[in-house]
Amino acid sequence: MSLLLIAKNRDFSSLKQAILDRDPNIDVEVWPRVSKKERVNFAVCWNHPDKVLGNYPNLRAVSSLGAGVNHLLDDESLADEIPIARLITESLQTQMSDYVLNAITNYRLHINRYFEQKKTGIWKQFNNISKANTPVGVMGLGEMGLSVATLLVEQGYKVFGWSRNKKDIDGVESFAGNDELNTFLGEVKMLVNLLPLTDETDGILDLNLFKKLKKPGYLINVGRGSHLVEEDLIYAFDMNYLEGACLDVFEEEPLPNNHTFWNRKQIMITPHIAAITPTEEAAKVIVENYKRAMSGMELMYEVDREKGY
Amino acid sequence: MSLLLIAKNRDFSSLKQAILDRDPNIDVEVWPRVSKKERVNFAVCWNHPDKVLGNYPNLRAVSSLGAGVNHLLDDESLADEIPIARLITESLQTQMSDYVLNAITNYRLHINRYFEQKKTGIWKQFNNISKANTPVGVMGLGEMGLSVATLLVEQGYKVFGWSRNKKDIDGVESFAGNDELNTFLGEVKMLVNLLPLTDETDGILDLNLFKKLKKPGYLINVGRGSHLVEEDLIYAFDMNYLEGACLDVFEEEPLPNNHTFWNRKQIMITPHIAAITPTEEAAKVIVENYKRAMSGMELMYEVDREKGY
Repeated sequence: MSLLLIAKNRDFSSLKQAILDRDPNIDVEVWPRVSKKERVNFAVCWNHPDKVLGNYPNLRAVSSLGAGVNHLLDDESLADEIPIARLITESLQTQMSDYVLNAITNYRLHINRYFEQKKTGIWKQFNNISKANTPVGVMGLGEMGLSVATLLVEQGYKVFGWSRNKKDIDGVESFAGNDELNTFLGEVKMLVNLLPLTDETDGILDLNLFKKLKKPGYLINVGRGSHLVEEDLIYAFDMNYLEGACLDVFEEEPLPNNHTFWNRKQIMITPHIAAITPTEEAAKVIVENYKRAMSGMELMYEVDREKGY
Repeated sequence: MSLLLIAKNRDFSSLKQAILDRDPNIDVEVWPRVSKKERVNFAVCWNHPDKVLGNYPNLRAVSSLGAGVNHLLDDESLADEIPIARLITESLQTQMSDYVLNAITNYRLHINRYFEQKKTGIWKQFNNISKANTPVGVMGLGEMGLSVATLLVEQGYKVFGWSRNKKDIDGVESFAGNDELNTFLGEVKMLVNLLPLTDETDGILDLNLFKKLKKPGYLINVGRGSHLVEEDLIYAFDMNYLEGACLDVFEEEPLPNNHTFWNRKQIMITPHIAAITPTEEAAKVIVENYKRAMSGMELMYEVDREKGY
């Protein structure tokens, strides 16, 4: 029995060590150095080469190395009956909440503008934008969205939520399904995307959606790059549907050096750092799920393949 | 009886209107257009021309337009028996807390570095710095400092406080006086200055102080420009006592276009916007204090001239 770590261009030495620290009896292998394909019973994947999972005939379960699992659902070489787990840790939720609150405050205080002014030594004050004038809409109310919405309510923001099924969260006015999407968007100035990536949500952040926000809106994308139609973002600035965006995820990562986003004053760019799974916490969940899989138990954070998350 | 608004190069039209909206019977004048010097009973000042207060023989009280009052205490033309009020509003405290939390998160997430990288399209990730590795020290535990410290405790930071007299604040380890300054500094990585500006605190942020922080430290100056010995800040970077600073206040404001701070990558600069008194709230406190002064009552937020705040 072995546990296989699979990713392109990633140093797994510290994660491997952290797993062994928790349980020295687990045989941890790092792709592509696999001693015997038949021995692999559990795989942990991030940006893995497509169809590589088909190489392992005795897989009992697969875990993502993050909250997103579309890379696993899209791999046709993975048999339907093999359970998939997301990797969620409390720290991820705290990090995500802190990131989003920070992005909103940076917007309210015009920190982006002050950075631009610093380049040329310009001292010009802008009025801080009040919380009252920054109603926030959170798309996706899973573990991450719930954590973000809760912190924003605590910090005095008016918060709206949108998800597949209506959620009951203190202080959050909640909308659900396609029927209520426009009503939701009409209340929102600051749009935070935390949806899972599915066929239905791919490309959901497009011109038609931006048009329905309180004008001009502001976008925080901390979901997936493919949620956003990148050319529509630029067009939305030109049309004044949006006044800015803070992006942590992109269609192609690393964001290519010649991408137009780098030159746009309205865009803040961070290199996919909003929520980084700490090695120790990742090891804890992976070991737990490895043992569950070996015992035939249900996984923690197991994915519903129908829903896609 | 008249209420006089005094500042250099400031448009007082909205504040004047807000005062009249609250009480149309108050005779509001805007310096330097004063109908009769003898009629001025109450003055509201910010960066007023030195000694101008000596022109008004019947002043009963003076209010600052912000939390700082050193510009009033330093004006020798203002008789000692005339009470001075600070202008504190709840919104100022919330703004200040939000600003400081934001500056700390920007540090922890390396937002400054990502801005620098954006200039040239560089995608390079840095590990987020945890809250556990960011012990915060708040110098000055008045209304502002208390509010900042409380929010940081709520958000999971380890918080130390330093003030003239020891304060008892939930979750804050508190130090007081010169004897305990070094012990306080030795616990702190992230130093937040919210001291009042007095003879004792002028220039307190110097090389000798930076040297005692956990190395390398980080400075957030939201007190006054004169608290900081500006050349020592640059020297502290060179000596690796400090790795960065977020500055909202400066010795000379606007910060001169040729000032060396603009060109330092380690420094984030905002143009004195951390806490801006909203006009409506300012008018409310000013009208209240005007009435108190006219009735011979004690002022709200009256300054103790001995202490200097």
